[in-house]
Amino acid sequence: MILSKKMENANAGASMVRKMFEEGAVLKARFGADKVFDFSLGSPDVPPPPAFKETLARIVAEDRPGSHGYMSNAGWPGVREKVAAYLTRDQGGALRNEFSADHVVMTVGAAGALNVILKTILDPGDEVITPRPYFVEYGFYAANHGGQVTAAEPGENFSLSVEAIKAKITSKTRAVLINSPHNPTGVIYSADELAALGRLLTEASRELERPIVLISDEPYRKLVYDGREAASVFPAYPYSVVAYSYSKDMSLPGERLGYAAVNPDMPEARLFFEGLCLANRILGFVNAPSLMQLVLAELQGVHVDIDLYRRRRDLFVEGLQKIGFELTVPSGAFYLFPKSPIADDKAFVNLLKEENILTVPGAGFSMPGYFRICYCTSEAAVKNSLPGFARTFERAVKAA
Amino acid sequence: MILSKKMENANAGASMVRKMFEEGAVLKARFGADKVFDFSLGSPDVPPPPAFKETLARIVAEDRPGSHGYMSNAGWPGVREKVAAYLTRDQGGALRNEFSADHVVMTVGAAGALNVILKTILDPGDEVITPRPYFVEYGFYAANHGGQVTAAEPGENFSLSVEAIKAKITSKTRAVLINSPHNPTGVIYSADELAALGRLLTEASRELERPIVLISDEPYRKLVYDGREAASVFPAYPYSVVAYSYSKDMSLPGERLGYAAVNPDMPEARLFFEGLCLANRILGFVNAPSLMQLVLAELQGVHVDIDLYRRRRDLFVEGLQKIGFELTVPSGAFYLFPKSPIADDKAFVNLLKEENILTVPGAGFSMPGYFRICYCTSEAAVKNSLPGFARTFERAVKAA
Repeated sequence: MILSKKMENANAGASMVRKMFEEGAVLKARFGADKVFDFSLGSPDVPPPPAFKETLARIVAEDRPGSHGYMSNAGWPGVREKVAAYLTRDQGGALRNEFSADHVVMTVGAAGALNVILKTILDPGDEVITPRPYFVEYGFYAANHGGQVTAAEPGENFSLSVEAIKAKITSKTRAVLINSPHNPTGVIYSADELAALGRLLTEASRELERPIVLISDEPYRKLVYDGREAASVFPAYPYSVVAYSYSKDMSLPGERLGYAAVNPDMPEARLFFEGLCLANRILGFVNAPSLMQLVLAELQGVHVDIDLYRRRRDLFVEGLQKIGFELTVPSGAFYLFPKSPIADDKAFVNLLKEENILTVPGAGFSMPGYFRICYCTSEAAVKNSLPGFARTFERAVKAA
Repeated sequence: MILSKKMENANAGASMVRKMFEEGAVLKARFGADKVFDFSLGSPDVPPPPAFKETLARIVAEDRPGSHGYMSNAGWPGVREKVAAYLTRDQGGALRNEFSADHVVMTVGAAGALNVILKTILDPGDEVITPRPYFVEYGFYAANHGGQVTAAEPGENFSLSVEAIKAKITSKTRAVLINSPHNPTGVIYSADELAALGRLLTEASRELERPIVLISDEPYRKLVYDGREAASVFPAYPYSVVAYSYSKDMSLPGERLGYAAVNPDMPEARLFFEGLCLANRILGFVNAPSLMQLVLAELQGVHVDIDLYRRRRDLFVEGLQKIGFELTVPSGAFYLFPKSPIADDKAFVNLLKEENILTVPGAGFSMPGYFRICYCTSEAAVKNSLPGFARTFERAVKAA
């Protein structure tokens, strides 16, 4: 009676997640934290880059007047200019127009950016298509603003299936939400896949007589391996907007800084930007945290040592494949999404727990039959967990 | 077509506010910023207290491991404990229970806290009663979560009229939202007024068979004059929650730190806290900015030099009353809300603009016939603007 009906239901669901964490905490208390292999949470364990610490200390020492004060809802103009210049360089001339400060809204992380974007565009009942598997919060974000998520099947090896997205388009489709590099699979969508998606959306928008917005959630954009680069949605489709965060690649998830970047080739870019600013204000963000804006503006393109994550990935991929797990080798982010050796992924995750290994069932990403491993842990933890994975694999396969 | 219908309308409305600011910018460019008296924005001009700068520098230098990292959605437990201890001391034994960390959710400012609270409790169509005049954003905040604001008339001199609130209660009433010290009038509600409101809400909740939540928006709680204290809602009514911000009394509006504090005497306090945590997460705030939490936790009860604001208030009140303006002397916050000498407050505000004096019409607070002056400016600006106020008063009265 004290919670709204929606929140009462959501809270009951959230209790299951809490239960999982509580069980993990019990295991750690019982066996010691170093004896529990916690691969459940995508919380970067690598410290922020030294340049972050230096810049933070310097800017605090400078004590610029007004540096903690009021600003435009979009963020400090000088900060947005620096981000815009970085985005323009990053595009390398692929767009007709350059980014300016008025294409960038600094936000409270990528989660803030996604909510601001959805608030800006969703009318009641509107649909947001997203490929399966997907981050469970997307459903909440769409529902916050009267919309709902429609899941589309992935292509082979979790590639982007434009056909599958096409099959889900209805008269209520307002946006397509993608995430590349992808949580939980680590897949990167290719420029060709994005171009094909762009063509589909151009055609569908014409038929619907309303632009479908392509939202690209890119907190892992810089966390890529093997010389790969994450292709950009901007050249693929003018009605695109990127939600970015410094949380993952700078290891600053608690500071909540990111941005929404509007494609400068979007015909209504100015109006869309104004909508984002207003949404940022009225949703109660008002503006992104000031000091972190000033610090991170000076660190465009800087990121943590990605090789640390790459080494863990290699260890895990080799070890798990040797055991017999089927998996797509991730090209980015810090997750693995192997197939569960038995159909019931929740049962398999429970078996792993008996080996003090914590993972997340694929059902949590609307994709049963798989499970997610996050390698935001030490290399030692990766190595030492492998015998437990091997024993659980044997047990599960034998029992099946 | 690129914005949702709601946002298109809101953006059209926001354009009027933008136009006002742009006109101000034009005036400043034309006559020089020092020749324009900008009393339009509630943006603290007083620098943060020295203790803030010292603590920030120290905590940055300490570089505690994980201090920018993931945390519970409610915020750092140690920070919430310090806030809880402060709140318990502040109550001085007036409550049956003490505050603990699990009554405090650190938020992205008071605007974040209000959105999180409303998200937690509002079902579609629910009504939030707030006394007139009120901060225009309240309407957006309620609408974000499917609700709507119902305005109640104020009492004499903008006191709290419990009768007027009673008259607005319907079967859809879910919350009463008050703000004390009050923007734009500077009025502080007395303990007796709050107790009477508590009795009304206890009775109405019983009749509705659902608790009405009393939300107290308190960013100006410490900005009080003449030895006054802002009475607390907590002893008045168990179903109460406070939205607090460090923006105004620490002059840190850009850093977006505040909290929601749940009355520990609320029977469902634990469930309400869980709802707030979940709302904080799914609205995309995730958590309040980490570093600022760590800094402000150590500065409980610290605030800017309030005497600076008090001196400006005294100058303004004396000067305006001498001219002939009718006004309620503010006991807190940094606003004055005089009666417009002509019925049309927008016309009067436009006349003031001809004297390079920027204020906000009462219509912006759902209270035509008045206008708001914010004294977040130098004493010199207050003093030097008085002749312009006098000339405009004369002109307006003569023309009427």
